[in-house]
Amino acid sequence: MTVLVVGSVAFDTIETPAERRELVLGGAANYFSLTAAFFTPVQLVAVVGQDFPQQHLTVMQDKGICLDGLQKADGKTFHWSGRYGDNFNERDTLATDLNVFADFKPTLPEAYRQTPYVFLANIQPQLQLDVLDQMKDPQFVAADTMNLWIDTALDSLRKVASRVDALLLNEGEARQLSGEYNLLKAGRAVLSMGPKVVVVKLGEYGALIFSGTDLRFVPAFPLDQVTDPTGAGDTFGGGFVGHIAKHQDLSASTLHKAAAVGSVMGAFCCEDFGPERLLTVTEQEIEQRFQALCQLGAFDTKTLF
Amino acid sequence: MTVLVVGSVAFDTIETPAERRELVLGGAANYFSLTAAFFTPVQLVAVVGQDFPQQHLTVMQDKGICLDGLQKADGKTFHWSGRYGDNFNERDTLATDLNVFADFKPTLPEAYRQTPYVFLANIQPQLQLDVLDQMKDPQFVAADTMNLWIDTALDSLRKVASRVDALLLNEGEARQLSGEYNLLKAGRAVLSMGPKVVVVKLGEYGALIFSGTDLRFVPAFPLDQVTDPTGAGDTFGGGFVGHIAKHQDLSASTLHKAAAVGSVMGAFCCEDFGPERLLTVTEQEIEQRFQALCQLGAFDTKTLF
Repeated sequence: MTVLVVGSVAFDTIETPAERRELVLGGAANYFSLTAAFFTPVQLVAVVGQDFPQQHLTVMQDKGICLDGLQKADGKTFHWSGRYGDNFNERDTLATDLNVFADFKPTLPEAYRQTPYVFLANIQPQLQLDVLDQMKDPQFVAADTMNLWIDTALDSLRKVASRVDALLLNEGEARQLSGEYNLLKAGRAVLSMGPKVVVVKLGEYGALIFSGTDLRFVPAFPLDQVTDPTGAGDTFGGGFVGHIAKHQDLSASTLHKAAAVGSVMGAFCCEDFGPERLLTVTEQEIEQRFQALCQLGAFDTKTLF
Repeated sequence: MTVLVVGSVAFDTIETPAERRELVLGGAANYFSLTAAFFTPVQLVAVVGQDFPQQHLTVMQDKGICLDGLQKADGKTFHWSGRYGDNFNERDTLATDLNVFADFKPTLPEAYRQTPYVFLANIQPQLQLDVLDQMKDPQFVAADTMNLWIDTALDSLRKVASRVDALLLNEGEARQLSGEYNLLKAGRAVLSMGPKVVVVKLGEYGALIFSGTDLRFVPAFPLDQVTDPTGAGDTFGGGFVGHIAKHQDLSASTLHKAAAVGSVMGAFCCEDFGPERLLTVTEQEIEQRFQALCQLGAFDTKTLF
């Protein structure tokens, strides 16, 4: 089933301990789309400036991403600059030039309003609510967020939480939003805000998936070389929602496998700058890494005593 | 098969954000023994002072722990005091009174020297080597260590690494010992020092198990309430080595399941002060938690595309 994603498409300037790259294609909705498109058709609602390369739009279309909802505005594309510290432990934002993204109003094409699966990438919670107001009974809505909105738009974010089926957030955000340090308590507290599913992303360790009283864990796929982790969380989201939309099922076991797909895709993302690895990875490579993740985590369950 | 453990038995004074407890029974070999004894007979080599309670010795004997190698010296038992910060993120050592442990010479009873499984708990690496020199062709030796020995006794520790089958260490120690931040590289670098198996303990996230080219991961068993994490790593070791000794197998799948047992036991340890929970937990509770850990981590492996 088709997934509609609303969020940012951007240029990023990325400094890692090893290298600096300018004008890398970025933005949460970009990473999400390129990943989810492996599993299901994708519709993208975002805004770019006049400087956005036609070449990348062609790449997206070739991957089955519908761009009818992509607005092209006068001005420059959103540009983010950041620098990673040693070992990617820390990331400093050096510049955030919103440009055309500052006035982004996500107006959905009429044909998108009945799309059954929706991903609200990390944007202002009020814009996420505006998108929901335009949708007609979606089957499944997932949203991402960030610490900035917990600090500055908590009421709107709580409304988002109460209206979506799944909320994805990282460990620190889960703790901040819930006021609970313990991850089980934090996840359950976020669940109590409304979503049926809460995914707490643990970065290099994996993710916890809360759904009702069920709890699952998926490890991160271990890499011996990280080149650039930018977008890995959004890529996780693309694998997670893409798998759910492909299988149209919200059972705990499907959610769990979906998170494993997210983990696998997030690892590919980290292997090169920006979304470059996502443009070359094959279904066969995804399948191989998924099976390797299974083996990494699956121990025999025969009785102990 | 019987496991011989050599290490510390101590009194601990533990301050958590919630409570302060004095004279809690502690020491790595104590936690290890009480845990491994669920799975296999245990022989303990350690030293205590005249102040050590007979009552606890009786508890240990009742659990099948042989105390023929427990030395009772003139003086007081080793006493450690520590304070945990909020959320157990940090631990400050307030006092380390070695007492009778300062002159501990692990002399093995003749009957212990052919014990097939050995755990060298965290003590001075030279003492670990002294134990190995007394053993006659053990089938499997595992050792634990700590950052202090990486700083002060690196040569001896490298000798230990070259002579044991398995080395258990935490994330920070693996990074420090290997000089590699990336965990895959760190684990592989420690493997290259000699052990066939390296277990990198990730605290609340789980553990990575390296054996040859095989890599496995086991999540920590999530708890919604941690009372006192003291001894959880040694308890993990007790479950890990206890399971291996019970099954007498070093295949990757047995090592993996053994780490799952370690994870389950480590979680029980955190539920009360010192080893108190280990004294009440039943085989049925262990089995239930093991099955819950299986479900937490096992997703279906059917093909993705």
